[in-house]
Amino acid sequence: MIKAEIIAVGSELLTPFRADTNSLYLTRSVEEHGIRVIAKTIIGDDLNQIAQSFSIAFDRSDVIISTGGLGPTIDDLTREALTKYLGIPLVLDKNILQKIERRFAERNIKMPESNRQQAMVPQGAIPLENENGTAPGIFIETRGKQVFLLPGPPFELEAMWEKYALPLLKRGELFQRQIFKIALMGESRVDEMLRPVTSTLKKTEYTILAGPGEVEIHLLAPFDAKEELLESANNVRAILGNRIYAEELAYMEEVVARLLRGFNKTVSVAESCTGGLLAHRLTQIPGSSNYFERGVVVYSNASKNQVLHVPYELIEQHGAVSAPVAITMAEQIRLLSHSDFGIGITGIAGPDGGNEQKPVGLVFVALADLNVTRVEKYHFPPGRDRIKFMASQAALNLLRLRLTE
Amino acid sequence: MIKAEIIAVGSELLTPFRADTNSLYLTRSVEEHGIRVIAKTIIGDDLNQIAQSFSIAFDRSDVIISTGGLGPTIDDLTREALTKYLGIPLVLDKNILQKIERRFAERNIKMPESNRQQAMVPQGAIPLENENGTAPGIFIETRGKQVFLLPGPPFELEAMWEKYALPLLKRGELFQRQIFKIALMGESRVDEMLRPVTSTLKKTEYTILAGPGEVEIHLLAPFDAKEELLESANNVRAILGNRIYAEELAYMEEVVARLLRGFNKTVSVAESCTGGLLAHRLTQIPGSSNYFERGVVVYSNASKNQVLHVPYELIEQHGAVSAPVAITMAEQIRLLSHSDFGIGITGIAGPDGGNEQKPVGLVFVALADLNVTRVEKYHFPPGRDRIKFMASQAALNLLRLRLTE
Repeated sequence: MIKAEIIAVGSELLTPFRADTNSLYLTRSVEEHGIRVIAKTIIGDDLNQIAQSFSIAFDRSDVIISTGGLGPTIDDLTREALTKYLGIPLVLDKNILQKIERRFAERNIKMPESNRQQAMVPQGAIPLENENGTAPGIFIETRGKQVFLLPGPPFELEAMWEKYALPLLKRGELFQRQIFKIALMGESRVDEMLRPVTSTLKKTEYTILAGPGEVEIHLLAPFDAKEELLESANNVRAILGNRIYAEELAYMEEVVARLLRGFNKTVSVAESCTGGLLAHRLTQIPGSSNYFERGVVVYSNASKNQVLHVPYELIEQHGAVSAPVAITMAEQIRLLSHSDFGIGITGIAGPDGGNEQKPVGLVFVALADLNVTRVEKYHFPPGRDRIKFMASQAALNLLRLRLTE
Repeated sequence: MIKAEIIAVGSELLTPFRADTNSLYLTRSVEEHGIRVIAKTIIGDDLNQIAQSFSIAFDRSDVIISTGGLGPTIDDLTREALTKYLGIPLVLDKNILQKIERRFAERNIKMPESNRQQAMVPQGAIPLENENGTAPGIFIETRGKQVFLLPGPPFELEAMWEKYALPLLKRGELFQRQIFKIALMGESRVDEMLRPVTSTLKKTEYTILAGPGEVEIHLLAPFDAKEELLESANNVRAILGNRIYAEELAYMEEVVARLLRGFNKTVSVAESCTGGLLAHRLTQIPGSSNYFERGVVVYSNASKNQVLHVPYELIEQHGAVSAPVAITMAEQIRLLSHSDFGIGITGIAGPDGGNEQKPVGLVFVALADLNVTRVEKYHFPPGRDRIKFMASQAALNLLRLRLTE
């Protein structure tokens, strides 16, 4: 197994406000080349500590990737730390200097003297061009290890990585990943249902990840265990059936959008407790105007009556949070908008507004089409954000199931 | 300065799908006690590598906090790694064993033998109670260092940290943080405007963080430099004025919600390109039904006409993405909903639908009240998500400025 290690340099990554996310991008990319990340270190702008991090990484990893600390200021120390650890000098690269000078000249600015530092390259290293900034990257192969120094800004890093670093990266044994996304089931429930499959895996790694309103399953196997991967994937499909909404890293709204466009159908939505989130998710997808006609957020009873003609008597009799109101909302928005599908959502997102009969988290989701109106009653765990998201997820899932019938 | 270091243990944190977020919570908490985090390590479930991480941390930090790896499975190795490094034995803690047994008994389940492992404690350590799970935490003070082993699940970790770990944590020199949040300005622009203040700081640390549609400024000073902090904060206020929308870590929608409730005003919104995001953000705040009456997402021209009575001639003459249409949307939704404020947004979120005259990113935002209707024209950089967010941010900011006039 080829082992990689990521060193993220920058004091801002040690504040409570910034998480390192470059490493997720890099991990995905090296994995695609058969390399596994075994450690990540996040370290401040401190010469000795960066050098120590390189020293530890050289001990245990084959590929070492650092991010950040390549800028022109005295805080940018990654180059110096690497050469300090390796005991080699930094030398001026005239090509890079010219490029940086040209960048400044193009913008009619005199290059600050400090930017000269960015043209300094460890002896024997290959500079990696930065098309989106002044800081070039660095590649050096030494002591049997590959070392990449990349800039911190994701925009600069990703472009450089794809174009200039990846072609140099060694390749490991490839493996295959099979993904399943499952909506509206808990992690432990899914884990339990899958135990007959997962407990017999030999060479395939099984991971289960829980996100809000969904669970993700990953099966990872080396190429020589392809058979096992295919068989276990089939078993997962047999157990979970149409609870699986995607076999890729797609959002629910992407899946629903694809189905709507495929069948050339339109949808309009009437929301109460989700407050526009369902419309927002449906319109996140490019080209959504092809399938999304309109949405209304009818928060008050007056708006439910005026916009959707929900009778006041119906609200009085059953309450605004009730199956009959959800049904009427779905049917009315469908008729008013001349859409193929209408969705109605009403519920209590909390933290206030609940009572014993109708607690916080109670949500009715209705889906109307030409032939039938379905309504589902949910009781989601507390948390306003989560209730809004789960309710929108339930509505999208209801539409997905109807479209795949 | 008291230095802390965080070691996050768990192979799932080395996949492309999971970032360590516990460390952000812990960093904020230790900072409040005058302790600075100088390094973070993320390491897999590997005994030697976890032990090595402890060894490095003991070398350079005063407080060492690990997260994860305290469960009952053979993958849970944090306890073993620490005792391996320290050369001390693990001993059975009968109190913990009883507690774990009781937890299982309450649920009428026989305790699996593997859970015994969770009752093993490094000699001389103090167990930290876990009220939300079976894995107790560990505290040990040795070689002049404080070591905390905490469970991985955030829910378990945070409750344990607050109640049982924090009272044991050493206290460093306290410092004060002053935060400014600024909407709709770029990082480099704000940075440049503030240079007269930030270039003269002596003991105060200045950090600028860019998020979508906003910039955050942090000034951090030790207590003995309180004067400098107050003075520089006043200078920041003088330079940025009402571009500052909050002096705390609040979202724009929270600030607007507070203003609406304070003045007892209501708002309704008519959205096109933001597709419900503005309504969603306004209804993220508990109690939003006090100030949010309704929203409409009028994606099609037909819906603009039918729901808001935007005349077809107006759309034909100026285009759906135009100032007159935004104005009519704002005024109509205000009248229809009997709200104090009406907001209209129309624009091109892309990636398709733009042309030379009306490129992707063009957005008109209008705000109507009893006395006046204002409209603003924006041209946001590409990216559908970003354009939607920036447009909703611009609308909220317009309302905020009107409410604070």
